Amino acid sequence: MSDTKQPVAFIGLGAMGFGMATHLIKQGYPVTGFDVWPPTLEKFTSAGGLTATTPASAVGDKPLCVCMVATAQQAQSVLIDGPDAAAPALPQGAALLLCSTVPCDYVQSLAKQLSAIGRPDIHLIDCPVSGGAARAADGTLSIMAGVPSEEALTKSKPLLGELADPAKLYIVQGGIGAGSNMKMVHQVLAAVQILAASEAMGFATHLGLDPIKTYQAVVNSDAWSWMFEHRVPRMVTNYQPIASATVIIVKDTSIITAEARRSGFSTLMTSVAEQMYFSAIGRGYGADDDSGLVRLYAEGKGRAGPVQGTAESYEEKLALVMGLLKGILLCSAAESLAFAEKVGLDLDQVFDLCINAAGGSQVLKKYGPSIIKAFREGKAREGWSAAESETSLKEVAGGLSAAVEEAQRLKAPVFLGSQALNVVRLALQSSPAGVAAGAVVKVWNSSSV
Amino acid sequence: MSDTKQPVAFIGLGAMGFGMATHLIKQGYPVTGFDVWPPTLEKFTSAGGLTATTPASAVGDKPLCVCMVATAQQAQSVLIDGPDAAAPALPQGAALLLCSTVPCDYVQSLAKQLSAIGRPDIHLIDCPVSGGAARAADGTLSIMAGVPSEEALTKSKPLLGELADPAKLYIVQGGIGAGSNMKMVHQVLAAVQILAASEAMGFATHLGLDPIKTYQAVVNSDAWSWMFEHRVPRMVTNYQPIASATVIIVKDTSIITAEARRSGFSTLMTSVAEQMYFSAIGRGYGADDDSGLVRLYAEGKGRAGPVQGTAESYEEKLALVMGLLKGILLCSAAESLAFAEKVGLDLDQVFDLCINAAGGSQVLKKYGPSIIKAFREGKAREGWSAAESETSLKEVAGGLSAAVEEAQRLKAPVFLGSQALNVVRLALQSSPAGVAAGAVVKVWNSSSV
Repeated sequence: MSDTKQPVAFIGLGAMGFGMATHLIKQGYPVTGFDVWPPTLEKFTSAGGLTATTPASAVGDKPLCVCMVATAQQAQSVLIDGPDAAAPALPQGAALLLCSTVPCDYVQSLAKQLSAIGRPDIHLIDCPVSGGAARAADGTLSIMAGVPSEEALTKSKPLLGELADPAKLYIVQGGIGAGSNMKMVHQVLAAVQILAASEAMGFATHLGLDPIKTYQAVVNSDAWSWMFEHRVPRMVTNYQPIASATVIIVKDTSIITAEARRSGFSTLMTSVAEQMYFSAIGRGYGADDDSGLVRLYAEGKGRAGPVQGTAESYEEKLALVMGLLKGILLCSAAESLAFAEKVGLDLDQVFDLCINAAGGSQVLKKYGPSIIKAFREGKAREGWSAAESETSLKEVAGGLSAAVEEAQRLKAPVFLGSQALNVVRLALQSSPAGVAAGAVVKVWNSSSV
Repeated sequence: MSDTKQPVAFIGLGAMGFGMATHLIKQGYPVTGFDVWPPTLEKFTSAGGLTATTPASAVGDKPLCVCMVATAQQAQSVLIDGPDAAAPALPQGAALLLCSTVPCDYVQSLAKQLSAIGRPDIHLIDCPVSGGAARAADGTLSIMAGVPSEEALTKSKPLLGELADPAKLYIVQGGIGAGSNMKMVHQVLAAVQILAASEAMGFATHLGLDPIKTYQAVVNSDAWSWMFEHRVPRMVTNYQPIASATVIIVKDTSIITAEARRSGFSTLMTSVAEQMYFSAIGRGYGADDDSGLVRLYAEGKGRAGPVQGTAESYEEKLALVMGLLKGILLCSAAESLAFAEKVGLDLDQVFDLCINAAGGSQVLKKYGPSIIKAFREGKAREGWSAAESETSLKEVAGGLSAAVEEAQRLKAPVFLGSQALNVVRLALQSSPAGVAAGAVVKVWNSSSV
């Protein structure tokens, strides 16, 4: 391979795509961009890019093409169905990197469609990304790539390496579709934990806690999650800047629940988040930053008539918020890993990716390994007795129960916490005393663990 | 027993209590009323009642006392703790009928308190009611009475008989606390089904269905429930009249979930309803009729940008609403019966009461008996194969799944339907193909069925 950077076509210059494409320019790639929104093209020219007015003209003669549109419908349009679609215009043997978050079955159908239009030579790579706009522009994304062949990997790896943090480029076993499945199970964590940040801060508001102090305490505790750390600061700046619009996570969430319906999996936590997202859209918050979901929780403060909680000190109240978060995080970790097991992903790789990405949390780091071990050892671990170093599921239930009970006194909604408590109780019902926290995963996948 | 009606003291003349007390006046009882709200006492005088200015002066010399305040806290105040409390002033051997909806452990503690203040002679009756203000005024309530002794039953039964429909007076086995538990498991149905009426009509709005046609179709179908029949008409009259304020069902719902926390039971459906009720309170809807909950669902219509469902005809859309409702009703029936089993109630009596009260539904009537049979026969019925006449659980899942999927396309929230679908999938995961619909109850009580 020569040192000269190969020309790249880049389709879809939104918040993520623009950062990725301009990063490639900085790394010396000639990049030809296409987007349906003309002002973006002007901005891209100023950033040193070339532009094209159709997908077909963008990709002509480019051995590498990145597609970073928002949805499977958009990908289908720019690549196959639309006027001047890209796929037929790609040169022989080009690598087509689909970085959009799409359902597994969509990217699999895209591979079939390429064959059907007589272009089986195109090396399709199923490589969704995670990390947000800042990391996109830095070339330090997490990327989870399902590749169909060694040749496809050879052709695409240098470009994937430019876009990803070297430690966060995951080649996912399973070929086309596996990358999207990996992203999907990661988004279980994202979908639940974005909302959990709002739920916890809304609960803190009802408790009368200072938001800044609460934020600092949580991010320095074992209730930390990446989403909490990154969302809460925008709650105190009136949901500005709009780093991730609510409609974006809604789209990813719908991919999760649709696949769950297809495969008969129960997304007990993600479904609650999805319903809250639909409520937010119904309120007109869809275009707002998703940190603005806190309004769904905090707005009721002072509207329930005379209410009185029992927690009095700052420490007591903070402990309730922590208990709520840890219980939710345990359940999102379990749901994510159980779904990964269901769709046949390598759980160690899922774990490694998730703890280093936007779905990361201290709780996942702490309990993930024992959940994975249980799947590996099957029913042998049915006892699930907690080692001395482990938290028992009953302790998690206690933290959740105290929080849900106080929220009930304050008439404050805690949708995820209430669901997590019910799920934990289901697990406790069929478990011996002293069972370890990770045993909650039995609820999702009773036949395997 | 003489034909002369005994004097009755009546504490708490709210929407229910006023109707009950004036009904007793019409039946020839001398009734002395007490309420903290003076205008009510004036109204009561006009209706032929006597009034008192303290609980103690109301009950003096009355062999019968009915307490129909709103909460356990109020009961504790008027009966024991407050100034001029009633209990010490009751004559020897009086019957004290606590008709308020209170937690089981409260009424049990009240019995102990009566002994502790030296009044073990008082015959406390644990007799919550159901049926709404109209039936209260008609003397045709459902009453579920836990009585401590034959003597207490003898003393209180004539009065209970005046207040209740003769076919709907249930003497619940288990003494003090059992009446409240019976009411509690009935309110599982009420709490879920009040919200389900709003969810279904909100979904119908997103689908573009005509509300009146939808209403008529549902009430004449096997998706009928008492709550749907009674709530929907008030949705089309701007939530007027205020027949049952939202805060009332919130109170009852909190009794359910608090007892569930105490006993380790998972109220998967009721908890979703409770969280939505807290959201409604946060929006300022607490004092409104609970039919106004439909706003939480319908407000998003037209706010999600361009959305497109797949159902086109009236029949297709209606089938989605029916599928949503039937799935929710199956899960509320299962949750109610599983909780009844958990707290040790006679399931046949629970069933008979519930199908004839505000919690009634065609779905409960159809599937209740097989769920009860499963509890009775224990694990022997683990197979749960559907008889030819029975609907399979998979069919229920299909109806729910189609509705949830269409709601997802329309970005319309269906909190209960989405939860019901997850619950049904949990049951299907550990069930053989062709399992009967009632088998969903296994999720709540896997150790007994």
